[in-house]
Amino acid sequence: METHSNTNPITIDEIIAQTDQGIEAFLDSRSLTENLADAMRYAVLGGGKRLRPVLAWRAAEACGSLGRCSTPAGVSVELIHAFSLVHDDLPAMDDDDLRRGRPTLHIHAGEAMAILAGDAMLTLAFEAIMDPDAQVADSARPVLLGELCAGTRAMIVGQVHDTLGGMPEELSEEEKLRLIHRNKTGALIRAACRMGAICAGADEAQLAGVTEFSEAIGLQFQVVDDLLDAEGDAQLVGKATGKDIEAGKLTYPSVLGVAGSRRVAAELHDRARAAAEGLGADGSGLVGLLESLTTRQH
Amino acid sequence: METHSNTNPITIDEIIAQTDQGIEAFLDSRSLTENLADAMRYAVLGGGKRLRPVLAWRAAEACGSLGRCSTPAGVSVELIHAFSLVHDDLPAMDDDDLRRGRPTLHIHAGEAMAILAGDAMLTLAFEAIMDPDAQVADSARPVLLGELCAGTRAMIVGQVHDTLGGMPEELSEEEKLRLIHRNKTGALIRAACRMGAICAGADEAQLAGVTEFSEAIGLQFQVVDDLLDAEGDAQLVGKATGKDIEAGKLTYPSVLGVAGSRRVAAELHDRARAAAEGLGADGSGLVGLLESLTTRQH
Repeated sequence: METHSNTNPITIDEIIAQTDQGIEAFLDSRSLTENLADAMRYAVLGGGKRLRPVLAWRAAEACGSLGRCSTPAGVSVELIHAFSLVHDDLPAMDDDDLRRGRPTLHIHAGEAMAILAGDAMLTLAFEAIMDPDAQVADSARPVLLGELCAGTRAMIVGQVHDTLGGMPEELSEEEKLRLIHRNKTGALIRAACRMGAICAGADEAQLAGVTEFSEAIGLQFQVVDDLLDAEGDAQLVGKATGKDIEAGKLTYPSVLGVAGSRRVAAELHDRARAAAEGLGADGSGLVGLLESLTTRQH
Repeated sequence: METHSNTNPITIDEIIAQTDQGIEAFLDSRSLTENLADAMRYAVLGGGKRLRPVLAWRAAEACGSLGRCSTPAGVSVELIHAFSLVHDDLPAMDDDDLRRGRPTLHIHAGEAMAILAGDAMLTLAFEAIMDPDAQVADSARPVLLGELCAGTRAMIVGQVHDTLGGMPEELSEEEKLRLIHRNKTGALIRAACRMGAICAGADEAQLAGVTEFSEAIGLQFQVVDDLLDAEGDAQLVGKATGKDIEAGKLTYPSVLGVAGSRRVAAELHDRARAAAEGLGADGSGLVGLLESLTTRQH
């Protein structure tokens, strides 16, 4: 295992560039048909923050490795994230025309292609972990797959709850909201962080710290997202805003108000920061990422 | 490895019952929400021939094992098959209201649930192979996953070609048809057979024989399906018939005529039969299955 040097830390932009190279190389290596490959590239490489691969990278660093060992994890979780956006944007789901400042895939390439490209990205996410060219210890692959399966399944359960309901009636509105977001956004963020740590050969204490960090930042990310949706500027956010409230969806501002939501975000920030600091000097990349997400405007 | 006794061979109905038990036990073991679990059960357990699990079972027997060692493979490929039917039936795809003699999932549970349940079945198919409760040698799991990934990816490529085109222009109509069906139906049938053989610990010669069988029967199955669609009775087939031709889709009867399609089916039958017989006495279950598929009316 190569060890990480903090003397010249890699920037977020460099992580994004390396992740995109990894995604392109992986897609190029698969037997696909051109129109499908184009649709997948449009969805997965067109804009976006690559938050999950960046988290995986910083989590790997926090466990004392070079972040690039997390590349297979980053490629895989980004494919899952992109698949979920494509399917969530479909007319029968959220019916969104705009994503990352561009037409959504079903507007760009048609609804049938959006369904199929989503299915293909989901399949390829699993394949990315099994890819013999991926620099992962063979013993880590089943563990990574277990994380990916559990994260993806929980994400879909969260989407079902958010779109179609079916949650236990006895839960309060806030409990329902937490359940939705812990699954819908949190589970894949948790998987990204843990997969980065696993790629880095994390020990139990490191994995526990990364997990604690990931659970707090995952929920905080969603609270900030809800706040941006309620208050934000469509041009900055890159998608229609105010839409959640219009659609009568449960959001943090609708349940706790703006001030209450900000308080929850601050508590989650503090929990995440303590967990990242608990990982020692190597956790500084996670701290930096947390701070930039806390103050983001889009 | 338990060895297979041919003295009292298990019937197709018993294989179907054991597969369904395996699917139910696996779904029950996952953390899901009730409405999603109901939708998945409706799609995967409601009717259907369980052709792929039965093929996996008979392939495992043909390699000298008890067929039930193939259960994780059968559960997994049946989930993939069911996911593909649910998404293919969607309004933006084939827009089918009837499947296995019942309303399709999007008619029964709505389009959003059909999209999400399809996504969940695809995810759970991978999870079924990784499930620690699944009786599979750990060394076989990555091999099985590789087969499943390749088969699913090819199936989606075939669906793209069939629905949206994008095949090389220089191919003849018959070559295009073969390419579509080798991917769309053939790849998952091939994966089912090979996964059954891998669960059974097949040697190289056995795996080659099973592969040859699977490629021939996969294409033959599709030719017979096209013939049934062109000539069939909707009540027997359990879905709308004559629809492929109405939709102007490439089918064997539309390209080769009914007599030409029957000739191709007969050639493929002979190839599959020779491959199954080449596996020795244990291949008798594959031969029986081949004959019943050759003469099927639905």
